[in-house]
Amino acid sequence: MTDSKLEKVAGNGLLNRRHLLGLGLAGAGSIASSALLGADSALKLEIPAWSQQPGPGTSGYGSRSRFTEDMQRATGNSNPLYPGGGASRSPLQLLQGTITPNSLHFERHHSGIPDIDPAQHKLVINGLVKQPLVFSYEDLLKYPMVSKIYFLECSGNSGSGYGANAVNGTAQSLHGLVSCAEWTGVLLSTLLDEAGVEPEAQWVSAVGADAASMGRSVPLNKAMDDVLIALFQNGEPVRPAQGYPMRLFVPGWEGNISVKWLTQLKLTREASQFRDETSKYTDTLPNRKSLQFTFPMGTKSLITSPSGQMSLNRQGIYQVTGIAWSGSGSIRRVEVSADGGRSWADAMIESHQSDKALARFRIPWEWSGGDAILQSRATDSQGNVQPTRNTLIDERGSINFYHFHGIQSWAINTAGEVSNVFA
Amino acid sequence: MTDSKLEKVAGNGLLNRRHLLGLGLAGAGSIASSALLGADSALKLEIPAWSQQPGPGTSGYGSRSRFTEDMQRATGNSNPLYPGGGASRSPLQLLQGTITPNSLHFERHHSGIPDIDPAQHKLVINGLVKQPLVFSYEDLLKYPMVSKIYFLECSGNSGSGYGANAVNGTAQSLHGLVSCAEWTGVLLSTLLDEAGVEPEAQWVSAVGADAASMGRSVPLNKAMDDVLIALFQNGEPVRPAQGYPMRLFVPGWEGNISVKWLTQLKLTREASQFRDETSKYTDTLPNRKSLQFTFPMGTKSLITSPSGQMSLNRQGIYQVTGIAWSGSGSIRRVEVSADGGRSWADAMIESHQSDKALARFRIPWEWSGGDAILQSRATDSQGNVQPTRNTLIDERGSINFYHFHGIQSWAINTAGEVSNVFA
Repeated sequence: MTDSKLEKVAGNGLLNRRHLLGLGLAGAGSIASSALLGADSALKLEIPAWSQQPGPGTSGYGSRSRFTEDMQRATGNSNPLYPGGGASRSPLQLLQGTITPNSLHFERHHSGIPDIDPAQHKLVINGLVKQPLVFSYEDLLKYPMVSKIYFLECSGNSGSGYGANAVNGTAQSLHGLVSCAEWTGVLLSTLLDEAGVEPEAQWVSAVGADAASMGRSVPLNKAMDDVLIALFQNGEPVRPAQGYPMRLFVPGWEGNISVKWLTQLKLTREASQFRDETSKYTDTLPNRKSLQFTFPMGTKSLITSPSGQMSLNRQGIYQVTGIAWSGSGSIRRVEVSADGGRSWADAMIESHQSDKALARFRIPWEWSGGDAILQSRATDSQGNVQPTRNTLIDERGSINFYHFHGIQSWAINTAGEVSNVFA
Repeated sequence: MTDSKLEKVAGNGLLNRRHLLGLGLAGAGSIASSALLGADSALKLEIPAWSQQPGPGTSGYGSRSRFTEDMQRATGNSNPLYPGGGASRSPLQLLQGTITPNSLHFERHHSGIPDIDPAQHKLVINGLVKQPLVFSYEDLLKYPMVSKIYFLECSGNSGSGYGANAVNGTAQSLHGLVSCAEWTGVLLSTLLDEAGVEPEAQWVSAVGADAASMGRSVPLNKAMDDVLIALFQNGEPVRPAQGYPMRLFVPGWEGNISVKWLTQLKLTREASQFRDETSKYTDTLPNRKSLQFTFPMGTKSLITSPSGQMSLNRQGIYQVTGIAWSGSGSIRRVEVSADGGRSWADAMIESHQSDKALARFRIPWEWSGGDAILQSRATDSQGNVQPTRNTLIDERGSINFYHFHGIQSWAINTAGEVSNVFA
């Protein structure tokens, strides 16, 4: 299987990313023997049933293949004291590219999904403004909008990384609270300018119309920067599970602050100290004090294939691929290691590299049947480098549950089984 | 409604695009009176029923709001002699941003949608190659992939523009055979390099597994450039209506050549003269000769709002928005006219500006209640400028049906009704 023309660029089989394109990867696929084919005989292959008669025609609203219906978000909440609460996780190891289809975008609800009639819904802007304002959904549709591709990540994503023992899980179960979409909406600054912000206002308190009245405080300087009132996701109206008819969208920051079913924005001098910024979504340090308002999500990456609970069924060349993102900019570099971080090689970033969006990386790797530990390490446009788990815990301690963005390690054993490890 | 601070930049009410952001658009929305609100009384507004109890929790595969279910593709084929044939058109006037959700991506089938089991499907590469090859779906998943945002447009899109009379239609019914997605797949060049192309090969003949055996010939130099074997669309596997489990994707070229349900690629000296490159998809000139293999889609734009069959119900400021694209590069400029092309103003492009992808433009316009004709004109990164309908017909004649990319004119009358006109 080894091809002497392939340039090794780091330990334990990592190959130069230029080998992704062009010659040298014949061994990557299990390419069938040409013995099946006589000269130019392909059309004599058996004609499958589906080619022998016309199929159904077009439809108003499409659906996916019956062969892909097992591609599902992982849902979980069986707590009767928490009706409608819980999260669902995107099947990251089954997706490709960077855009998450709306039906598979992760969810996190605190009291379920309200069934909002957009004709009855109101958005109020009040507090320290010159002119309190009320907007209907139809009003907002008349405003200028912008369209941006942004990731969204729950700050509890990957939280088990702080634990004492590595959980036996998949990319989905461990890290599936991150997704990415094209979000279209009205810049919050447009509406705040219209209301007229009083000089003493420093925070914008956002409240949702769900039964939990989810509330979060946004610093005014962020609110005036890139925050959206998102009305569309991947071209269509934002769905109920994502905040229909409108959600606050705070690019790059922990998902909880992008308040769904947005119904009030109140300008205040101080943060509102909502339940979800005191009892939750704070980072508890080893001295038992908690950091509050640690908003931006860290520079992070994740190998989605091979990943936890997969298995390698042959020696040879594999495409290592994954996603990378940063709450502080775009992804400039992703490195991959196959020897647990002793040596690193640059992966190819083969998608767009937009600000605060997922990027997709890829690098070829030759598995020779021995033990290996695959890791990826992202660097963003601000020079932030994804830390190891140990570095992160040295800095933040391990009582915390939020904002885990340490390097993920996937161990491959000699049987080809892939598992989550702390390394 | 007129605000003297607003800078007029072209005739009949077009305003400087900088007014899209920031002050000056208070008149744009029908903003409710603040009389509804006492000081800080927003929380005393009536609490809607959906805020009073928890809603349903997360789900494995999401769906949209019941209030948006009328957002459908327009389908059409009632010809019993053409089973499974026909097209469905994207509801362009209801979408925002640039990404089309997979359920609303346009379709065009010649004998319906085959129900393909990916485990049984094969892709053959043969003809003038050193080594004929057969790939399963699983084989292809092991190959390196790239992820790109590309538009796809049927070459018959907007074809009624060649007619003698302007059809009374909508953006969807007239132009809905264009959509845009993130496509992820294996570069065709990777597979052709592996098979080894013989020096005399000049074309790649692609054949689908539908009952029509849709076939198209692709010039080798394009095949070796940016053509994909697309396996994923917006992150999830390509759906049956788009070619599951695999389609050829030929960026920027007429949609028909992106052969769905791809099952054979044969390297040949000459084009194969398939049915769909002789009887269809040729451009008939006034002298009754036809141009064949006119592949790239033209530089084009379209105002989606206001657009055909909408009506303006008040005087004042509107957000004119639409989409622009080019088969030859990225969109660099979109101009808008409100006086039928006598004067033009630059619109703001407020999305990404990727190669061969939709871009979203927007400009504010003040309607004073008089007659107006709204037009948009795109310029791409190669300097190609979208022609007027008259220029296009002068060059190509009007017998042709394909590749219409002339400027679209929407007339607004004094009653505010918007209609398709030739101007």
